[in-house]
Amino acid sequence: MKINGNIIIGQSGGPTAAINSSLAGVFCGGKKFCDGKIYGMRNGVEGLLDERIIELSDYIKSDRDVELLKRTPSSYLGSCRFKLPEPVEGNEIYEKLFSIFEKYNIKGFFYIGGNDSMDTVKKLSEYAAFNGSDVRFIGVPKTIDNDLVITDHTPGFGSAAKFVATVTKELVRDGLVYEMESVTIVEIMGRDAGWLTGASALSKGDDCEGPAMVLLPEVPFDYEYVKGRIAEIIKTQKSIVITVSEGVKTADGKYVCELGSSKGTDTFGHTMLTGTAQTIATMLKNDLGIKTRAVELSTLQRCASHIASLTDLTESAAVGEYAVKAASEGQSGKMALLKRISDDPYICVTDTADVREVANLAKSVPLSMINENGDHVTEEFIKYVRPLIEGEVSQLTVNGLPQHIKLD
Amino acid sequence: MKINGNIIIGQSGGPTAAINSSLAGVFCGGKKFCDGKIYGMRNGVEGLLDERIIELSDYIKSDRDVELLKRTPSSYLGSCRFKLPEPVEGNEIYEKLFSIFEKYNIKGFFYIGGNDSMDTVKKLSEYAAFNGSDVRFIGVPKTIDNDLVITDHTPGFGSAAKFVATVTKELVRDGLVYEMESVTIVEIMGRDAGWLTGASALSKGDDCEGPAMVLLPEVPFDYEYVKGRIAEIIKTQKSIVITVSEGVKTADGKYVCELGSSKGTDTFGHTMLTGTAQTIATMLKNDLGIKTRAVELSTLQRCASHIASLTDLTESAAVGEYAVKAASEGQSGKMALLKRISDDPYICVTDTADVREVANLAKSVPLSMINENGDHVTEEFIKYVRPLIEGEVSQLTVNGLPQHIKLD
Repeated sequence: MKINGNIIIGQSGGPTAAINSSLAGVFCGGKKFCDGKIYGMRNGVEGLLDERIIELSDYIKSDRDVELLKRTPSSYLGSCRFKLPEPVEGNEIYEKLFSIFEKYNIKGFFYIGGNDSMDTVKKLSEYAAFNGSDVRFIGVPKTIDNDLVITDHTPGFGSAAKFVATVTKELVRDGLVYEMESVTIVEIMGRDAGWLTGASALSKGDDCEGPAMVLLPEVPFDYEYVKGRIAEIIKTQKSIVITVSEGVKTADGKYVCELGSSKGTDTFGHTMLTGTAQTIATMLKNDLGIKTRAVELSTLQRCASHIASLTDLTESAAVGEYAVKAASEGQSGKMALLKRISDDPYICVTDTADVREVANLAKSVPLSMINENGDHVTEEFIKYVRPLIEGEVSQLTVNGLPQHIKLD
Repeated sequence: MKINGNIIIGQSGGPTAAINSSLAGVFCGGKKFCDGKIYGMRNGVEGLLDERIIELSDYIKSDRDVELLKRTPSSYLGSCRFKLPEPVEGNEIYEKLFSIFEKYNIKGFFYIGGNDSMDTVKKLSEYAAFNGSDVRFIGVPKTIDNDLVITDHTPGFGSAAKFVATVTKELVRDGLVYEMESVTIVEIMGRDAGWLTGASALSKGDDCEGPAMVLLPEVPFDYEYVKGRIAEIIKTQKSIVITVSEGVKTADGKYVCELGSSKGTDTFGHTMLTGTAQTIATMLKNDLGIKTRAVELSTLQRCASHIASLTDLTESAAVGEYAVKAASEGQSGKMALLKRISDDPYICVTDTADVREVANLAKSVPLSMINENGDHVTEEFIKYVRPLIEGEVSQLTVNGLPQHIKLD
């Protein structure tokens, strides 16, 4: 049964290389499972409140446009960081939103985002249930951090992991060029969860030594231990790469970057985590007297669509499409997700879960995937992540560069 | 006529994504234009002095190995930073080297590197001429900096330029995701020449706004001007990217990173240039009160073989092969090079020049390729660089990652 009316899609939170592939999936799902128009909200719920609404088919006009959308990094519709208040009756934000749904005859609402976005879906669906609204709300997960629960993994993670593993592999080769002892410290995103940093270990193989150590935020950072291990490893391997999550903390809860010079806080009052690798590099250089180098993968790891994982882009689109199918079957207050039904061969299928079981929870790397010394990931981790980076996306290029699609 | 004897190849200086493609070219040239063995020296002249010599065909055994070599970043044979002394008679380093040439019946010497490597070729060929040696010496250029004279451009530059342009394009998209004013400052390699930083402007097109400003070391850095321009641009474009060379200096000769906190010197006594983007980002944030972000492309730009330019890899191999051909024709004391004979269609052919005309000289971005305000490159620059990034290299992958070949 098709959704009888129009649907609307939004994107929220930090972008990924696959978030537009999910948008393409919802768009294609809309064409299959919805009778009406497919709207997009600009800059998430924030833009929706100002009725900044477009009709997607005015912009995505061909199959090629859909393919370009899948390959374009960042959020095509723009994003926001907007936290809905609690859904108490008479709240004017909710009244405004539901009056817009009515005005545009919107019967399905799809929100692509991370934890906070699932909270938005949860609140809107609860408000709808309480007020007898027939609008259906489905969340579509995305985050490079892979820290959402229940889903096997999050769309967007595989592409970021592929970028991290690829450049780690290149940096390991690069580091071995001179006949001298050197340590390259690569800083990788992940404030609380080490999934992405762990992905650097995928670089190890017949043709690559891989990182000598992998330091995750799940394990307290012990500088004396790290220094000692490096001094030992460097005796036999002259040049090594170690990877470290931006969020590693000492046992007494201090961010490693705070061990060096102060870096201030961002606009949300979070401690700014730049400089973790640089802090460690400077300390090691001073204490061990060896050449060190800090490399921060920075924003590149969330937008490097030029080396996206085909598995990730395909799954991201599938989850988006399934969200619309689920709504067409009457589901609401759910998150579409991936369920792994086989490891070998790797098979993931789409499913849904109650969004209340997902929102505001986070998934860390379990101890079983971290080695005993707490300085590397295990084979179980590799086995879990490897399939997610498989497959190359054929680039659509123009003038020697990957082609994108943009709205304005 | 073939070279009657053996040849040897070395790599020197900083690695690139294409330096092994030149090695593959010399290897293939050796098979065509040399009767004897094809040796490789480990870690350049430094390793050669210790007779760390391998026979390449023991390691590069198939056409697929050659293809893997072309796609492997960093220096397959290892590199060194070794400056030969002046070639005065009786110098024991020269005597040692020429005795090794005799011992291994080496008649051709090929050295892949930048300026310093051309200096090595120059000195060895002068010493050979003076002492009546029949060993031929040919330099094979490489550098991501594109700062060698006479050659139209340097092998290795096109791939680095493609990486820089690609990630700039992705960062521009990423920056536009929120509805807020923001400036992303991207720091790009180039101590004295702005070729690579200028390549960021290639990102501009129908699907990308490109960088709002491009700051090259050829133009003195005027913070007050930059601040004023950004304040103006940000009124109409809410989020912008500016690209800056690590080597930009103020009119009184200070590196921009020295305007912030002190960073010390490297082992050669050079001022360490990390932190140029961060310095500017902090100053702009304080003075304009807008969100800023610093991204340093760091080592990735010289080793990102996963997004190498097909034109670059093909030309790098061609220059390597031509070097052996030139030696087989009796040339010595030369650098193999690229000569552009047509802009449209783009055609480059191989040639040689006297290495004395190349060694120890550097090529900056000419003023005709920089706009009047000194804050962007001109159409002439784009026309010159665009062909060099064209073409995608089909990756040979294993386990979801580009496959490399390594020696040890």
